[in-house]
Amino acid sequence: MTERSRHSVALVGAGLGSPDLLTVRAARLIAEADVILHDRLVDRSVLALARSDAHLVDVGKGPGDGWTQARINELLVLYALDGGRVVRLKAGDPFVFGRGREEADALDAAGIGWEVVPGVSAAIAGPALMGVPVTHRSVAASFTVVTASRAAGEPEPDWAALARVGGTIVVLMGVAKRAALAAALIDGGLAAETPVAAVVDAGSDRQRVHVGRLDELGELPVRSPAVIVIGDVARYATSAASVAQVVVPAEH
Amino acid sequence: MTERSRHSVALVGAGLGSPDLLTVRAARLIAEADVILHDRLVDRSVLALARSDAHLVDVGKGPGDGWTQARINELLVLYALDGGRVVRLKAGDPFVFGRGREEADALDAAGIGWEVVPGVSAAIAGPALMGVPVTHRSVAASFTVVTASRAAGEPEPDWAALARVGGTIVVLMGVAKRAALAAALIDGGLAAETPVAAVVDAGSDRQRVHVGRLDELGELPVRSPAVIVIGDVARYATSAASVAQVVVPAEH
Repeated sequence: MTERSRHSVALVGAGLGSPDLLTVRAARLIAEADVILHDRLVDRSVLALARSDAHLVDVGKGPGDGWTQARINELLVLYALDGGRVVRLKAGDPFVFGRGREEADALDAAGIGWEVVPGVSAAIAGPALMGVPVTHRSVAASFTVVTASRAAGEPEPDWAALARVGGTIVVLMGVAKRAALAAALIDGGLAAETPVAAVVDAGSDRQRVHVGRLDELGELPVRSPAVIVIGDVARYATSAASVAQVVVPAEH
Repeated sequence: MTERSRHSVALVGAGLGSPDLLTVRAARLIAEADVILHDRLVDRSVLALARSDAHLVDVGKGPGDGWTQARINELLVLYALDGGRVVRLKAGDPFVFGRGREEADALDAAGIGWEVVPGVSAAIAGPALMGVPVTHRSVAASFTVVTASRAAGEPEPDWAALARVGGTIVVLMGVAKRAALAAALIDGGLAAETPVAAVVDAGSDRQRVHVGRLDELGELPVRSPAVIVIGDVARYATSAASVAQVVVPAEH
């Protein structure tokens, strides 16, 4: 990787929350930054690595707070032109449902250099931290990562095709729609008793795990942010070393 | 995450090669370890972080060198019982085609504690380091990670179902079989002109990128280790900030 020049931006993955799961490069860029534009989901303990005189801007897009993606792109360009060391800090990995490439496009259009610093993604690490491998020999030879949250006008994933692939399905940002996507997968041919596991606040000391069957996914008391795993590998959820608490529905 | 007790093993992701892309926790565990059992693909620069008196064991499974998975599992248990700080260091992420969970099973069976330290996976970071986002708004709402390399008796992925899902397809360990898998995807309904991109030695100073169409994947001069991306997001491969060299076939 090349060293950063002036007028450039680093699109940095912040991992799952714990500073321990930042990459070495991410930790260094955060510690050196003049300006950090960060998502709401980025943990305080990560932001605490910044210099005390660094300018931290929360560009988290909450309901009604007016931070559009266009405004974030504009700010990135403005701060970069200002000449400081600018870090765009995004939860997980910047290029997994992070709209990072749109920000890179905006920087390209303005003639500003950028680099991407990949992060540990919740799509893989969330399952791992409850003991679940997304692939496992003779159980799952592929995994598909999908989100149930999409912009108006964007098509739904083809759940029926996904059901036929036969690998692990990992759902990010799917808590609100979990009953509907479970029904769509069962309609598509997945067995109602397919194991599911969900990890809430993965990697934090608030981590909780819920396990069950696909047809009861809608009733599991999962809250955001959660990673939902659907497939036989989900059976591993209860034997994890780092699971704080496993919650099994009463009927099990 | 809890601190490690005696008689335990850390299953640690080594990321893509550069020590910069280790997690902070991985770097610390490597620096403190008494014993490190590592894959062949783990970079020397990462192993150089170990103590000078640490015992490094290359358990890379090359053709005919006799390191079976069963023998690796056995060694992990033996070293853990010996009481040292044992790190099992695996390229990428331990739970993505890494057989990490099999090692965890062996440790569970022996009553030895373990933790998994997720790593930056080539499945996501390989594409990113050639500028390719595995998801991109209104282009790809999901991605499937699959390997074309499998043990005797294990079924082929359902390439036709994969073709219908409509998201990005990321292939690990697929260089030797790339012509066959491209043909299977085209048979399954993917357009022959679907963009593909392959990154070789991602993240190293030897990184090279090859781009083309799905029906010419077999002719692209890709060598291992490579990550192959199939889908419209592959169009982004030429605009990457960190690409060392982009190789486009002469006819383009």
